[in-house]
Amino acid sequence: MARALEVVGERWTLLVLRDCFFGVRRFGDLAAHLDVPRAVLSDRLATLVDAGVLERRGQEYLVTEAAYPLWSVLRALAVWGERDQRACGGTLRRFAHAGCGDGPDTDADGRCPACGQVPGPADLVVRPVDPPDEPRRDDAVSRALRRPHRLLTPLP
Amino acid sequence: MARALEVVGERWTLLVLRDCFFGVRRFGDLAAHLDVPRAVLSDRLATLVDAGVLERRGQEYLVTEAAYPLWSVLRALAVWGERDQRACGGTLRRFAHAGCGDGPDTDADGRCPACGQVPGPADLVVRPVDPPDEPRRDDAVSRALRRPHRLLTPLP
Repeated sequence: MARALEVVGERWTLLVLRDCFFGVRRFGDLAAHLDVPRAVLSDRLATLVDAGVLERRGQEYLVTEAAYPLWSVLRALAVWGERDQRACGGTLRRFAHAGCGDGPDTDADGRCPACGQVPGPADLVVRPVDPPDEPRRDDAVSRALRRPHRLLTPLP
Repeated sequence: MARALEVVGERWTLLVLRDCFFGVRRFGDLAAHLDVPRAVLSDRLATLVDAGVLERRGQEYLVTEAAYPLWSVLRALAVWGERDQRACGGTLRRFAHAGCGDGPDTDADGRCPACGQVPGPADLVVRPVDPPDEPRRDDAVSRALRRPHRLLTPLP
């Protein structure tokens, strides 16, 4: 676990990785959506590429299949963090199993209530649930993330 | 998720929290087992107490029930990190559902094969699997962690 943490145990690294799972692939989109300093973003992307978590293809960064199990880490963090976010009016997101027709939301353990399986990230659709009084960000990634979207497919 | 990461998105914080889930409660035991500088350990424990993840009782730090969902984060990180650890001869750990008589190991999604549920941390037994050629650490926590042990009960 210590080795895993050296790669992902850092706030920006995990936020960058979350956006990459959501389908954000370009440096500029990541920088705009996360408000991360560009030097920090360059450094974290390099670390993730070196660790085999991301693969660079031209100007884009893609999550490697070897890193798909990290989705469970991000999902579990989001579930735990959501209690506070809900209280503070932050954006909530729900996930549904694409193989079950975007049916019911997966539960806190990531399981699809329709089929009983725990879908991998490539089989999930993210569905935002906006609290009505949330101030809306207007960058392209934030707008795209307000629509239901298959994970790991390019966004926006 | 950003707020959750501010609390746990840091290497030492997650390692401290993992040890607390394993039942390590005393400052000195954490410091000895993790080889963490004492000033860093003090700082991370204070952050976790402020966030309601740990509760201080006298000289001991206990995981609060509100923080039990964070176990899924640690478990998922361990599963992902284990591929490399196995290659490098690191200590592996398996978990079993105490409610099913410490039966088969839980799977990569944390599910107990015997009953189909995903047990919470208070219902899990940790079972180390030592590669035969591992150099063995000799501090009290490392020795205790080489025996099967119910999570969240005091160790060593």
